[in-house]
Amino acid sequence: MDLTRETFSKVDVLIIGAGPAGLMAATWMARCGIHARIIDKRGTKIFTGQADGLQCRTLEILDSFGFADRVWKESNHMLEICLWNPDSAGVLRRSDRIPDTIPGISRFQQVVLHQGRIEQFFLDSLEEHSNIKVERGIFPYTLAFDETKAEDPNEYPIEVVLQHLTDDQANPRQSQATLDGAATSDGLFRSNIAADDDTDEVLSDAHENELTVINETVKAKYLIGCDGAHSWTRRQLGIQLEGEQTDLIWGVLDIIPITNFPDIRMRCAIHSSKSGSMMVIPRENKLVRLYIQITTTAIGSEIDRWSINPKMILDSAQRIMAPYKIDYEHCDWWTAYQIGQRVASKFSQYDRMFLAGDAVHTHSPKAGQGMNVSMQDTFNLGWKIAAVLNGTANRSILKTYESERRAVAQELITFDHKFSRLFSGRPAKDIMDEEGISMEEFKEVFEKGNLFASGVSVNYGASIIVAKDDDAAAQGCEIGVAQNVNARIIGKHHLATNIRIGMRMPSFKVLNQSDARPWHFQELLKSDGRWRIVVFAGDILNKIQMLRIQNLSGGLKTLVGKYLLGTDGTDSAIEILMIHSAPRIQIELLDLPEIFHPLSNRDGYDYDKVYVDDLSYHEGYGKAYEGYGVDKKRGCLVLVRPDHYVSWIGGLEDDGEIERFFEGFMVKKMRWFTKLREDLERNLI
Amino acid sequence: MDLTRETFSKVDVLIIGAGPAGLMAATWMARCGIHARIIDKRGTKIFTGQADGLQCRTLEILDSFGFADRVWKESNHMLEICLWNPDSAGVLRRSDRIPDTIPGISRFQQVVLHQGRIEQFFLDSLEEHSNIKVERGIFPYTLAFDETKAEDPNEYPIEVVLQHLTDDQANPRQSQATLDGAATSDGLFRSNIAADDDTDEVLSDAHENELTVINETVKAKYLIGCDGAHSWTRRQLGIQLEGEQTDLIWGVLDIIPITNFPDIRMRCAIHSSKSGSMMVIPRENKLVRLYIQITTTAIGSEIDRWSINPKMILDSAQRIMAPYKIDYEHCDWWTAYQIGQRVASKFSQYDRMFLAGDAVHTHSPKAGQGMNVSMQDTFNLGWKIAAVLNGTANRSILKTYESERRAVAQELITFDHKFSRLFSGRPAKDIMDEEGISMEEFKEVFEKGNLFASGVSVNYGASIIVAKDDDAAAQGCEIGVAQNVNARIIGKHHLATNIRIGMRMPSFKVLNQSDARPWHFQELLKSDGRWRIVVFAGDILNKIQMLRIQNLSGGLKTLVGKYLLGTDGTDSAIEILMIHSAPRIQIELLDLPEIFHPLSNRDGYDYDKVYVDDLSYHEGYGKAYEGYGVDKKRGCLVLVRPDHYVSWIGGLEDDGEIERFFEGFMVKKMRWFTKLREDLERNLI
Repeated sequence: MDLTRETFSKVDVLIIGAGPAGLMAATWMARCGIHARIIDKRGTKIFTGQADGLQCRTLEILDSFGFADRVWKESNHMLEICLWNPDSAGVLRRSDRIPDTIPGISRFQQVVLHQGRIEQFFLDSLEEHSNIKVERGIFPYTLAFDETKAEDPNEYPIEVVLQHLTDDQANPRQSQATLDGAATSDGLFRSNIAADDDTDEVLSDAHENELTVINETVKAKYLIGCDGAHSWTRRQLGIQLEGEQTDLIWGVLDIIPITNFPDIRMRCAIHSSKSGSMMVIPRENKLVRLYIQITTTAIGSEIDRWSINPKMILDSAQRIMAPYKIDYEHCDWWTAYQIGQRVASKFSQYDRMFLAGDAVHTHSPKAGQGMNVSMQDTFNLGWKIAAVLNGTANRSILKTYESERRAVAQELITFDHKFSRLFSGRPAKDIMDEEGISMEEFKEVFEKGNLFASGVSVNYGASIIVAKDDDAAAQGCEIGVAQNVNARIIGKHHLATNIRIGMRMPSFKVLNQSDARPWHFQELLKSDGRWRIVVFAGDILNKIQMLRIQNLSGGLKTLVGKYLLGTDGTDSAIEILMIHSAPRIQIELLDLPEIFHPLSNRDGYDYDKVYVDDLSYHEGYGKAYEGYGVDKKRGCLVLVRPDHYVSWIGGLEDDGEIERFFEGFMVKKMRWFTKLREDLERNLI
Repeated sequence: MDLTRETFSKVDVLIIGAGPAGLMAATWMARCGIHARIIDKRGTKIFTGQADGLQCRTLEILDSFGFADRVWKESNHMLEICLWNPDSAGVLRRSDRIPDTIPGISRFQQVVLHQGRIEQFFLDSLEEHSNIKVERGIFPYTLAFDETKAEDPNEYPIEVVLQHLTDDQANPRQSQATLDGAATSDGLFRSNIAADDDTDEVLSDAHENELTVINETVKAKYLIGCDGAHSWTRRQLGIQLEGEQTDLIWGVLDIIPITNFPDIRMRCAIHSSKSGSMMVIPRENKLVRLYIQITTTAIGSEIDRWSINPKMILDSAQRIMAPYKIDYEHCDWWTAYQIGQRVASKFSQYDRMFLAGDAVHTHSPKAGQGMNVSMQDTFNLGWKIAAVLNGTANRSILKTYESERRAVAQELITFDHKFSRLFSGRPAKDIMDEEGISMEEFKEVFEKGNLFASGVSVNYGASIIVAKDDDAAAQGCEIGVAQNVNARIIGKHHLATNIRIGMRMPSFKVLNQSDARPWHFQELLKSDGRWRIVVFAGDILNKIQMLRIQNLSGGLKTLVGKYLLGTDGTDSAIEILMIHSAPRIQIELLDLPEIFHPLSNRDGYDYDKVYVDDLSYHEGYGKAYEGYGVDKKRGCLVLVRPDHYVSWIGGLEDDGEIERFFEGFMVKKMRWFTKLREDLERNLI
């Protein structure tokens, strides 16, 4: 091995893997001003194949970073699912139509867009907001951890040796085939049918050929392993994927179909009477993805990887779809996979090294969940690491990553287990046919699965950052994330009956008080690392209610001043937003306490903090109070985490509870005179 | 003068001036595959100041090129206009609130965004779709025209000598001041208070200093002069601006205001009792544009250009706004202008050389019309020139540019004349105060002006491309644009009572038949140079109605095949779109005649031609038939121009009328066997 150079560097966060999960982590670091690096062994981003489904919740998240609109514009929108089953004579018929996204659960609907475009939007966003660039052609080589430094926030306990490859070595077969356009891309090399050691193969090739490899030693405070199903990081940490692999093999074709099947632009689940099942996913640019069952359990176990090819997969599709015809001239990509469901036993070590995405959960792709759950892993993790590094939260919040996300992964695996087995089974001929699958049951699971698959049903358990009445231990985690029993805060759910503590803040349209512009409330929840106190101020035309708001404003002012992002500035880690229910034109913004329209010497008043639940000129009436289930007269307070999940609900006099809640994990940072005043009040000096 | 090099070249279209009008022209050329060049004397696009208001119609147009979403996202949306007037005691009060955009007239609302961003979106779009790049630092020097070649479509009768300047020479004072950030940008150098010869000043500087100037001779088929109020092209053509200049001077400040005025984020018209008037235009990035009256008619005529500065303008604003305070730390740009309204006597010469934008109409900027009407000039012109160059239309359609756009310019000038005088007048103290302006009348003009200002009320007169019952001569043009009297086609307005022949096609939501996705119908009218026949197919569940559609499909097939974009391809200059009114789930796309789902060997069926007026899952019910005023049972045909203006309306059996209408100006291009069949049918061989 020819090591031409060694370098040493330090970084706050090292992210391994620049797929959707890694890019999401990097995006948080970019928006929170964290010194981070993200490396990937691949020489380019991917251009074809891989994941494509995007849940409504994922779109909400991408919108909080400002680029969901690009996805919305380029993607194919899926509106309806058609179920095709054999009729009593065994002939394929459309048996049902169900809406793809359940109406009303989100301002977005499920869409499909190639993973490579999503990655591009992340890359563009990183470039716009930071100096973080994906460093490609870099393999992690060794990982060491100094346990003695684990709990010291200023230490860099992680040491990773990286090896930089040249361009040729870093471009695996698949992307080369795509780039020169000569061959249809084959995704098998990343499939779970392939051996579990492709990474090492490429690297050992490099070593054997004694190519130029530059060694670099990086010391990091935090490490996030987003390096996929064959995760190098996971293996270094000695963490296992637990679960099972089946012998059900499915093929995937991305083609421009030439077909007389009537529903080729709908998402379809097709069960043939004897030839297996398939799923139709209409995509952007006239493409359609077909998931096609190519074996049944009857046929048996061992599949020769090399016997699978597009022709063979198409043959299966033609049998399943008969009497309809399907063929293609253009095939964009194809692969095959073996159905299995596995979850990692642990998601982190020492609350310093974390695993996310495919590195900790693998499952079948048909439900379109993979890319979403992976991005949402690091969406959950990123702001927490950033808050600790920025000194606004203490390390205790990091434990909630595993408690919150491992539960989601388990749920996903349970869903996929049930769904994929129902999908791969033969339809029952009649009620007596016990080996067959009931199409009624399939439809039921499909419909129920739709809520899960939207991503909006995620419900994080009680913890130091979720003030609800559950038993934190019931989340099945070994780690303790509960609040201190003696000072436990519990939110008052009855004050906002349609907002669930532990779930993401729903969205309704409200109008800006100062310019009457309608906004979906979620649009105001930018992902910038800030906590938000949403003041449902109620009917502030009522003088008593206005008095309550005035009383509250003092407490809020103190709170905002205690948790600054830096001790020299005025920028707070907490943003105050108001939604009131009085008629817009009867309220003047400047009559409200100044905490709701802070004054800056350069920019004048801030006009973007106060909103109203009122009729708009062009976009109807959002009915936000009704939607949120909040009393229009008396209002309430809602505390929203930087990732839009609700921590707590309380009354307008309960701001003291927020203060105590924050004391459980936040780190005070205030200007010196604020601190002096507080110390005096507490008789500390 | 040191001429280092001379070059010669040919181009189909030469565009002079890369402001919004020139960029719009270039964009059409890009989308229609025309060989065009666009030059500008400025060294960079502008960065501050200038125009900012965008009408809903302009947003519809930008959307047809695919980038209205970028404007919508970055711009400030204006929702409400507040009128502030002196009360009976002379104290300033909010007297009225009116919606800024009249609800329901468009799927967009009026927004405000700096002209430089709009230009950037055009530049990005040009780069994405063509090789056309703005060539900067280039002055036109001489213009010659060979009349003998005017009517030969293959000739290049225009000869322009261009002079290429170096970067330093091409950067005028304003953009330099902005780029280094040292000084607040001053727009006076482009103001109409400045002398009318700034262009020549820069150029003569270059000559005097004997700097490197490269001469280039360009021969062009068509020339479009979009070179602003001081248009060099207009002067070469000897065309005059006619109209009047007043002695009313207004100042403009783009500032981040520090103020206690309650409506600073609303568009406001403020009339003070004695200190003049102002207008508030809230903009993006916390900016507000203030239009401030700095003289009254009483003060008199001659204004020293150099006595106007931001301090003086702010002083006026403070007097007008009293008792409210206004000040700023950050001023982005400022200028002043003298109110006047002028229109060019002619908009074109020989139907070869055209003028557009400020080169043919100047007026006061307060109504936010300038950039819009300018872009719409070339939006009207561009597809016509492209069609002639592509050989799909004959030169007769070019005359309709002047007949259609000069009428709009005249309307604009009349509106602005009335509006600016009412704005600059002193409010009447009471009904006996005849010299004062009635605030009731002001409000009325303002409200009425809002429809005009939206841009959707433009109504083009009868001509060879607008088949309506008006008198073409009544458009006040010297040029003949009427259809042949003996073969005149008149559309049947009663078949679509809310679609007006001569006005732009309105928009309602419809669902794609094949995937149930809702689209605003206008979204389907991409600006690609194609004419569209919209088949309102009615209730196609009814067998007789379906028979009508089957009969129609034969005629449509013939029509589509007669007007191909190239004789070798199948791509037609006419697109067929259907909207039917039967329940979506009771219709199968492939049961319809193939003209509504053309088959391609590579791409299979086309799934984007058939839409349905039905309930959507997530975006309500568009009620398109009701909106368009079309009979839900029997339907109709609507012929839409490439710029979305309606040419003709007829019944489902009237496709022969479309054929005759097209024969008035279209050039047939068909595949050889189609032509053979036609010739045989006509007994020509």
